[in-house]
Amino acid sequence: MRTYRILLIIASLFLHDFGYCQQKNYIKWVDPFIGTERMGHTFPGATVPFGAVQLSPDTDTVPFSINGKYNRDVYKYCAGYQYTDSTIVGFSHTHFSGTGHSDLGDILVMPTIGKLKLNPGIASNTQTGYRSKFSHSDEHAEPNYYKVKLMDYSILAELTTTARVGLHRYTFPESDSAHIIIDLVHGIYNYPDKNVWTFVRVENDTLITGYRQTSGWARTRTVYFAIAFSKPFKSFGIVNGEKLLYKGFWRKFDQNSNFPENAGRQIRCHFDFSTKANEQILLKVAISPVSTAGAIENLTAETPNWNFEAIKQEGQKLWNNELGKIDIATLDERDMINFYTSMYHAFLSPTIYMDVNRQYRGLDQNIHIASNFDNYTTFSLWDTYRALHPLFNIVQPKRNIDMINSMLAHYSQSVHHMLPIWSHYANENWCMIGYHAVSVIADAAVKGNDGFNLNLALEASVQSAQNEWYDGLGYYTKLGYVPEDKSSSSVSKTLEYAYDDWCIAQLAKKLNRMDVYKDFSNRSLNFQNVFDSSIQFMRPRLSDGSFKTNFDVLSTHGQGFIEGNSWNYSLYVPHNPEVLVSMHGGKKQFESYLDSLFHMYLPDKYFAETEDITRDGLIGNYVHGNEPSHHVAYLYLWTDSPWKTQQTVRNICSRMYNPTPDGLSGNDDCGQMSAWFIFSALGFYPVAPASASYAIGSPLVTKATIKLDNGKTFTISTQNQSANNVYIQKILLNGKPYNSNFINHIDIVNGGELTFIMGSKPKIQKKKLKK
Amino acid sequence: MRTYRILLIIASLFLHDFGYCQQKNYIKWVDPFIGTERMGHTFPGATVPFGAVQLSPDTDTVPFSINGKYNRDVYKYCAGYQYTDSTIVGFSHTHFSGTGHSDLGDILVMPTIGKLKLNPGIASNTQTGYRSKFSHSDEHAEPNYYKVKLMDYSILAELTTTARVGLHRYTFPESDSAHIIIDLVHGIYNYPDKNVWTFVRVENDTLITGYRQTSGWARTRTVYFAIAFSKPFKSFGIVNGEKLLYKGFWRKFDQNSNFPENAGRQIRCHFDFSTKANEQILLKVAISPVSTAGAIENLTAETPNWNFEAIKQEGQKLWNNELGKIDIATLDERDMINFYTSMYHAFLSPTIYMDVNRQYRGLDQNIHIASNFDNYTTFSLWDTYRALHPLFNIVQPKRNIDMINSMLAHYSQSVHHMLPIWSHYANENWCMIGYHAVSVIADAAVKGNDGFNLNLALEASVQSAQNEWYDGLGYYTKLGYVPEDKSSSSVSKTLEYAYDDWCIAQLAKKLNRMDVYKDFSNRSLNFQNVFDSSIQFMRPRLSDGSFKTNFDVLSTHGQGFIEGNSWNYSLYVPHNPEVLVSMHGGKKQFESYLDSLFHMYLPDKYFAETEDITRDGLIGNYVHGNEPSHHVAYLYLWTDSPWKTQQTVRNICSRMYNPTPDGLSGNDDCGQMSAWFIFSALGFYPVAPASASYAIGSPLVTKATIKLDNGKTFTISTQNQSANNVYIQKILLNGKPYNSNFINHIDIVNGGELTFIMGSKPKIQKKKLKK
Repeated sequence: MRTYRILLIIASLFLHDFGYCQQKNYIKWVDPFIGTERMGHTFPGATVPFGAVQLSPDTDTVPFSINGKYNRDVYKYCAGYQYTDSTIVGFSHTHFSGTGHSDLGDILVMPTIGKLKLNPGIASNTQTGYRSKFSHSDEHAEPNYYKVKLMDYSILAELTTTARVGLHRYTFPESDSAHIIIDLVHGIYNYPDKNVWTFVRVENDTLITGYRQTSGWARTRTVYFAIAFSKPFKSFGIVNGEKLLYKGFWRKFDQNSNFPENAGRQIRCHFDFSTKANEQILLKVAISPVSTAGAIENLTAETPNWNFEAIKQEGQKLWNNELGKIDIATLDERDMINFYTSMYHAFLSPTIYMDVNRQYRGLDQNIHIASNFDNYTTFSLWDTYRALHPLFNIVQPKRNIDMINSMLAHYSQSVHHMLPIWSHYANENWCMIGYHAVSVIADAAVKGNDGFNLNLALEASVQSAQNEWYDGLGYYTKLGYVPEDKSSSSVSKTLEYAYDDWCIAQLAKKLNRMDVYKDFSNRSLNFQNVFDSSIQFMRPRLSDGSFKTNFDVLSTHGQGFIEGNSWNYSLYVPHNPEVLVSMHGGKKQFESYLDSLFHMYLPDKYFAETEDITRDGLIGNYVHGNEPSHHVAYLYLWTDSPWKTQQTVRNICSRMYNPTPDGLSGNDDCGQMSAWFIFSALGFYPVAPASASYAIGSPLVTKATIKLDNGKTFTISTQNQSANNVYIQKILLNGKPYNSNFINHIDIVNGGELTFIMGSKPKIQKKKLKK
Repeated sequence: MRTYRILLIIASLFLHDFGYCQQKNYIKWVDPFIGTERMGHTFPGATVPFGAVQLSPDTDTVPFSINGKYNRDVYKYCAGYQYTDSTIVGFSHTHFSGTGHSDLGDILVMPTIGKLKLNPGIASNTQTGYRSKFSHSDEHAEPNYYKVKLMDYSILAELTTTARVGLHRYTFPESDSAHIIIDLVHGIYNYPDKNVWTFVRVENDTLITGYRQTSGWARTRTVYFAIAFSKPFKSFGIVNGEKLLYKGFWRKFDQNSNFPENAGRQIRCHFDFSTKANEQILLKVAISPVSTAGAIENLTAETPNWNFEAIKQEGQKLWNNELGKIDIATLDERDMINFYTSMYHAFLSPTIYMDVNRQYRGLDQNIHIASNFDNYTTFSLWDTYRALHPLFNIVQPKRNIDMINSMLAHYSQSVHHMLPIWSHYANENWCMIGYHAVSVIADAAVKGNDGFNLNLALEASVQSAQNEWYDGLGYYTKLGYVPEDKSSSSVSKTLEYAYDDWCIAQLAKKLNRMDVYKDFSNRSLNFQNVFDSSIQFMRPRLSDGSFKTNFDVLSTHGQGFIEGNSWNYSLYVPHNPEVLVSMHGGKKQFESYLDSLFHMYLPDKYFAETEDITRDGLIGNYVHGNEPSHHVAYLYLWTDSPWKTQQTVRNICSRMYNPTPDGLSGNDDCGQMSAWFIFSALGFYPVAPASASYAIGSPLVTKATIKLDNGKTFTISTQNQSANNVYIQKILLNGKPYNSNFINHIDIVNGGELTFIMGSKPKIQKKKLKK
C-alpha cells in the first residue's frame, strides 16, 4: 500500500492540475486512510476543514450493547470505518475523527439495485441486506473526495462536501429497480433505544426533509436534514420497522408506500429509479442543528448547482489553503505524508455548528444566533488542550477565538455553570476529567490571541473550578486533593485540576485580578498533595489523609488514574516542572526516572490493561497513544540531558507515526495526536499551555515556513539534518546564537527564522538553561 | 348538587363583586362541572377563552392499552376528570374539551406532604402514591378558577390561568417535608411508549424549564415549559424511572438528587420545602409550542407578578366579555346555566397556539411567525363545522378569520397538501372523515366574514378535495361515490364529501370562478349515488356498482357509516334538502320518515353499538350525542309541518342539556354540542353552513341580545313564551311580519330585532315557505 501511494503521489506532482497552479499542492500529501486501521479511529471520507459534514463510508454497525452488556467490538467502529473490513454499509454524514468513545453516523445513504432490502445485513453475507462488498483497489480517498466501487451492485459511489452539505454521485448500471436507501436507524455506537425519534417528509419527488433524534454519548441530540435528488424518484417508501402499540388514525393509510410523511423510532426509506447504463444520480444532503428549514437554507446557499467537480475542487482549495499554512520540506516523502495528514487530521475538528443564517442550537436546546462569532462543536478538551489548541493559536488564531467564544456561549447556556468538558451537538457528554477549557482560554489569552470577552472568560473559568458537585471537586477544594475513596481516578483529577488552576491564575494575572491569581496559584500547588515522597510516586490518598494501600504504580486500573498509570502520571505537573524535579529528588534522579519510563519493559499484564493502544504504541512504559504523557519527552529539558528529549522526540516521530492505515499507535483524539506530531516535527512543543513558552525538541523537517495570519512568516530551517543527526548542536534565532531550550510565542508571531544546526552526537550542555 | 348550585348562583347575584360592577355578571351562570360525568368529556379546571393552558385536575391515568390491547376504560378520561371519581392525581395543563378520543394532560403538578412518593398510586388506596382523596363538598369551579382540598395532605389547591400560563396556589399545613411533584410521565391516553423524550433543567432554585415530547393522537408533539416557584425549594430531584441500556458519562453523577439536568423517557421531579401552617406556595407554569425560551417569555409577559387574585379576575373579565356577547333572559335559571355554560364550552377551543412573540411550531415542525393573524390549534372539524364555526361568524368573527388563517397556514405547511382534518399541536391526527375545513372557509366567505386570502382558500379547498390518496377520495372522484369494499364508512364519506363539495362551489361562486363552481356543484350531487330508492335509504355501494347485501339500516357497525346508522345518515344532505325530500318520496313521506326517526324505539342491540352516548341521549333513533344528525330536527321545515321542528328542538333542549355534571348526553366535541344549544336556544340554526341562511326553530330564551363586533345588536325577543308555548304563531322582523322559516345572516349582522310570538298550539302553515 505504502509504495503504491508514494508512487501515486510522485506521479501526481507532475500530472495533477488543481486549477490553481500558482499555489503549491499540499493535499496530495494527505492520506485519509492513515489511522483507519486498528485504533486510530479516523475516517477516510470527504469533508472540508472544520466542516459540519463528514461524509464517509461506514463498514459496520456494531451495537453498543447486546442484551444490556457492553459489546467490546463497538470500539473499533468509533469512526464507522475499519480498513480491514470488506463490506460497506453505506455513507453517513457525521463522524468523529479519532475518538475513543463515539456517537453520530447520521443519515446513512446507500445505493443499490435489484430486490429492495431495507436492513443492512451481515458482513459475512452481503446478500442478507443492502450492504455491499468492496475492495481497496477500487477505493480512493483524498481531502474532500472519496470514491469506491460497490461490488454487489456495480455502482460507483463518489462523495464530496461543503461545510454543511454532503454531495453523493452514484454511477448506476442499467436497472429498472435502482434504489437509494436512506437508513435513519443506522448510527455509530447504536443500541436498541438510541433512536429517540425520527421524522421524515417527502416534500416533492426530488426533495425530502426530516430529523433524527438520538440519545447516546450526547443524550439529547437532533440532526435535521434536507436531501435533494438530481433525478425525480419514481416511487418511494418511508418504513417504520417498529411494532406500534398505538397506531392512531394514521392506520387509515398505507404509510409504507408513497406516503409522504412518517415518524417513529425505526425509520428507513427507499427511493426508486430506473437507470440507464452509467447513469449518474446525485444527492445533496444538507444538515442543520436547528430545523429542516435551516437545512434547506444550507442546501440552497452552499450547493446552488449539481456541479460535483466544482464543489469538490472548492473544498480542496480550502484544504490546500489550510494545509499550506505550514510549508515544509523533509528528508523523505514519508514525513511529508505524516505531516500533512497530521495537519489534515488536526483541521477536522472542532466542527462548525451553525446554519448559514448563523442560527445554532445551544446547550439549553434553544435556538441562538452566533452574531459575532462562528459557533463550533466537538470539543474533546481533555485531549486537545494539550497541543491542538496551542497549534491553533499559531495557525488558526481566528478560529481558536471563535472556538473560545463557542465555549463561552456553552458556559452561558450551561445549567451546570460549567465550561465544556467534552461537548458535541448542543450536549455536554461529561467524558474524561478536568476542566481543560480553562487551559485553552488562558493559553490564547496569555499568547495575546485574546479577541474574546476576557472578563467573562475569567468568570467562566473560576465558576467552572468552583462547582463542588463536579467530579470530586468539592473534596479537592476542601482537602487539596481528590480522595480516592470518594471519587475514582483521584490522582489524575487532582493533578489535572492543579494544572487547570494554574491556567486560571495566568488568565487572572493578565487581567490584573491578583486576588484570583493568588487563590488559583495556591490551588495549582495541590499536585504536591498526592505525591508520596516515600515511594517517589504520585499515589491516591483517602479522605482520612492516608495513602491508598495495595498500590501498584504500573497498573492503570483502580489505582487512582485514568488512561495512564502512576509511573506516567507522576510526571504530570506541566506547569511546575521545577518543583516536580525536586519532588523526584533532583535532576539526576528525575532523569533516571524518565530513563526508566522510556526503557523498561511493561509486563504483559499491565499492557493488557492499557486502553486505546497497541503494543507498538509503547516505548518502554511510555504510552504515546494516550495523552497524559504527551509532554513527557520534553521533560528532559529540566535535567542536564536535553539531548534525551531530542532523541526521544525523533524516536516517537518515527515509531508512532506511519503513513499507513495502521500508522497511528492510538486514537488520533480529534487531532491531538496529530498536533503533537506537527509541533514536534517543527522542533518545539507546548509543555504547559497557558505559558507563552515552547520547549525545544528536535525538528524532523529540513525546513518549515509558518504563514501567520498577521502576514508574517516564521521559518524553521536546519543544517546538517538527517535521520541520524537528531541532536541540536546550535540554534540561531534570526541569525543570532540562541542559548535556550525554550522559545517564546512572541518570537514566533513576530516572524523570523529559527535555525537548527544538527549533528549525530548529543551536545552535552554544561550550562543550566532556564525556562 | 343542582339545588346547591342554583342557590349559590342566586346568592352570588347579590354578593359577588367582580370589580367591574358596571358590567353584568355572566360567569356566575357557568358551571364548569357540567359534562364532567359520563360522556360529556369536559374538564372543570381553569382556563381563559380559547387559552393555550387548560389547567385542570386529573382524577385518573388509565393506560390506552394494556399488553397491546385497547383499554376501554381510557375513554372515560378523555378530559382527565370524571365527576364520580374520589381521588385526584394532580393538575395538568392541557386538556381537550369534550373529545371522544384524546391526548394531552401535559405537566402534571401535585403538592404533597410527608414521605416522598413519585408514582401516582391507585385510586382504591391513595397511600400507594402521591394522589389524594377529595370531596365535591371541598371543591369549587368557576371560569378561570378551580379549588379543591386535597384530603390526604390537608392542602388547599387553587388554580387560575392566563392564555399561556397556569397559576397554582397551594396552601400547605405545617410540614418539614412538603413536596411539589411534577410528573412528566403522566398524560391522557397514555401507553408505555407514548413518552418519546423529556428534558428538564433546574435553572435556579425558583425556575425550571424543559419539554415533554409525546407520540399519541398527535404523533410528533412537544410541549415546552417554564415553571417559576414563589419560594425557593430547599432540595429537589429529577428522577428518570427508566432502566437505561446506555448510561453515558452522566453515570458519574447522582442525577436523582439536586442535579440540575436530566433527560429521558420516564421523568418525574420533586421539589422540597419546609412550610409553616397555612403557608402558600405559588407556581407559574408557562407553556410554549416553540422552546423553553418562548415559555420563559410567555411567563414573564403574562404573569409579571404573583397576584393570584388579579390574574384570576383578569381572566374572569375576559370570560365575562365573551359570555356577554349574547345577553339573554330565560324562563328559569336552569336555561341560564345551560346557555352560559354552553357559551363557555363553545369558547374553550380552538386554542391559541403561539408564543407572545408570535412564534409557533408549524405542521412541518419548523418555527413560523404568525405576523398577520393569531395562530390557533385543536380543530375538531368533523364536529365543529356544523354549528361552532357558524356561531363564531356571528359572535367571534375576528377569531374565526384567525382560525381560517391558521388552517391556511396548516395547508401551506402540509406535505399532504391538505387543509386540517383534525389537527392539534402542529400535527394532523387524521381523525374522522371529510374535509370540512372547506365548510368553515366557505361559510365565513359567503357570510362576508372574508378577511382572509380567498384565492389561497379556494386553492387549498380544491386541492384538499383532489387528493386521491385520501380516505377513498380517489374512488369518489372516479365513481361518484366511495365504494365500501375499498374504503369503510363509505356512505358517510360520500355524503360528507358531497356536502363539502357544495361548500367549495359556494366559495368558487363568490370568487366568480364558475369553472370550479360547476365542477364542484356537480360533485355535490354525488349523495344521490348512495341512495337506494328501492329501500329509501342511503346504502353502501361496492366498486362494481352494486349495493351492499346483508344491509342493516339501524346498525352503526360495518354498514358504511360512522357515528350514525343509515336511518340517521339518510338525512345527511344539508345542502340540498329539496332533492333529499324528493328522493324520500316527497314531503309527506319525508315527514313520516322524520317522525319514525324521532319516535321509534331503538332496539338494545343497536343502542349497544352507538358510540359516545347514553340511553337518555336517544330520542327514538335520533342520537343527539353524535353529530351527523344535528341538522335533522330542522328538516321538518322542508315538510308541511315546520311546527315539528319547533317541538323537537325544544324537546332536545330540555332533554339533552341539563345543568348537572352528567347533563350532556354525549361528548361536547370541542363545543359543537354547546353551539347547537346556543343556536337552538336563540331560535335558529345553520342547517347548511356555507349558505347564508339559518333555519328557524323555536327560541328557548325569552329575550336575547347579540352584541356584534360591528357595534350593532341583534335582538331576539319573545311574547307569550313558556315551557309549553313552544310553537311560533307569528314572527316580526324589525316590527314587520316575517313570513319565512329562514333568516339570513345579513339580517342578523345588520342588527335589528326578531320577535317571536309564541303559543301552545302549532300554527299549521297553509302556505309553502321557501328557503
